[in-house]
Amino acid sequence: MREFALIERLAERLASRRADTRLGIGDDAALIAPPPGQELAITTDTLIAGRHFPVDTVAFDIGYKALAVNLSDLAAMGAEPAWITIALAAPELAGDWCDALLDGALAAIGDHPVDIIGGDTTRGDLALTITAIGCLPAGRALRRSGAGLGDVIAVTGTLGDAAYGLECWSMRDRASEDQRFCIDRLARPQWRPGATLRGIANAAIDISDGLAADLGHILEASGVGARLDIDALPASAALRRACGTDSRRRLQWSGGDDYELCITLAEDQLDAARAALGCPLTVVGTIEAEPGLRAFDANGQPWGGDGERGWDHFGS
Amino acid sequence: MREFALIERLAERLASRRADTRLGIGDDAALIAPPPGQELAITTDTLIAGRHFPVDTVAFDIGYKALAVNLSDLAAMGAEPAWITIALAAPELAGDWCDALLDGALAAIGDHPVDIIGGDTTRGDLALTITAIGCLPAGRALRRSGAGLGDVIAVTGTLGDAAYGLECWSMRDRASEDQRFCIDRLARPQWRPGATLRGIANAAIDISDGLAADLGHILEASGVGARLDIDALPASAALRRACGTDSRRRLQWSGGDDYELCITLAEDQLDAARAALGCPLTVVGTIEAEPGLRAFDANGQPWGGDGERGWDHFGS
Repeated sequence: MREFALIERLAERLASRRADTRLGIGDDAALIAPPPGQELAITTDTLIAGRHFPVDTVAFDIGYKALAVNLSDLAAMGAEPAWITIALAAPELAGDWCDALLDGALAAIGDHPVDIIGGDTTRGDLALTITAIGCLPAGRALRRSGAGLGDVIAVTGTLGDAAYGLECWSMRDRASEDQRFCIDRLARPQWRPGATLRGIANAAIDISDGLAADLGHILEASGVGARLDIDALPASAALRRACGTDSRRRLQWSGGDDYELCITLAEDQLDAARAALGCPLTVVGTIEAEPGLRAFDANGQPWGGDGERGWDHFGS
Repeated sequence: MREFALIERLAERLASRRADTRLGIGDDAALIAPPPGQELAITTDTLIAGRHFPVDTVAFDIGYKALAVNLSDLAAMGAEPAWITIALAAPELAGDWCDALLDGALAAIGDHPVDIIGGDTTRGDLALTITAIGCLPAGRALRRSGAGLGDVIAVTGTLGDAAYGLECWSMRDRASEDQRFCIDRLARPQWRPGATLRGIANAAIDISDGLAADLGHILEASGVGARLDIDALPASAALRRACGTDSRRRLQWSGGDDYELCITLAEDQLDAARAALGCPLTVVGTIEAEPGLRAFDANGQPWGGDGERGWDHFGS
């Protein structure tokens, strides 16, 4: 499939869902008319085959994950997703493969009013760079810097599944049901509707690099520290059955790729947050004045997970 | 250099130039407050080492070109550039190399009020994906579909230099002064201030894939055809000295990477366009009703450049 043919195919499949999209794919640039009084949140993430997803990931899951990762960043900012551009490098562009990729991307978007307004395709090793643009009322963003003393720390969903799924990837053809569950969490992470937390949460981040690393960004930006209950970290039944306590704790503490939200909020806002999110939200710790991140087990004993600080794509 | 260290370094170097940039690099997403009554133009382009620039291009020129290519797309839409995100994949991130890349990016921006608001770095084969966002008054974009019967076709600057520069690349250490000029045009293309052409030009595109291919997009989108004077295509003195007539014509007709603008406009708007642009603007043909693109030489003889339709990154 030639480049221009691909762009035409995308344009054909992508009917606009938004009245404020003035022009989609097909000119030198797309045109949008942002709603008055709104700020726009803008994020960019690259996913490279063999680094951010296994090289033998199917096209649907690549498209799904690339979108979910970026929509999750917007959610962590408290923004409603609105517009997407997709830059795709691939060794070749078979029509079926492209359709499956787009099917996955659209599945991650779901029924949200989001338009894919721009694209670029080029020959190269498989990689996708997505730019996602979201809307939110001016001044209402959920910043990393908003955590305050007395806040509780809570996370959506469950942690550690995706990291365990990666461990199981190479044996996925003979995986148990529990392992398959975790592999699916890695392949098609569910981004959470963080926009519903505006006015409820004080700080937010999405967990891409592991809870310890990502919560660490909140602590640093807010100039505070935190105490975590390692045994309070939410685990799926599948992960509990599949892993011993030690390895499960480690996966939940530093495993990346779950794309759950980590938020801080006043304790009396927890019910409002749960009602807004429509997904489990578990309190895992509290904000403290002393800098740093400390973990304790259910018996109040220090837990030695420090030093494991999640992913760093250029780390050693 | 670790990923987070690089992002911190970028944030340190990138003081905001815009009051409507609410939050730059460092959170889950950047925040901007678009000016009321404006539309935003959004474009994304990926540059891959060995495909969009020679693998032995210096970091400054990589940064320069990646920005120029995207700013040129905004210009072709009639938008003023405002915000940029940079997604960088590289085998490693040496501090000096990153600084030089950023120097080049900032040089391409010049003194325009543009903020680099987001970034992503990951390990991989060298590639950059830039997303550029520009502003323009609602409804005033220069579209590819605006060409009408009676319009003249004009191009900025000169054509063919970059394509000839690519031919000379491998011998650049012993290049003549003329060849060096063309190599520099390839490495650091000058994007043109297309925003000044709003209300003057009827259609616009930037010449990335060659005049024939890119003008072809205008013709197709506008439902018209065109007649070109192959001998009217503007050539630099360097290209005229370095190449014979046949090869020069071919480079000007189908050579990519010049990033000049091709516009259509009423003939009586030419003076206004030249005053607005502040760069040479040469009439090269006229819009006609008959579909297709036809070239003639100065003697009125058909010129056989057809079949050469510029770059297609997935073509054979």
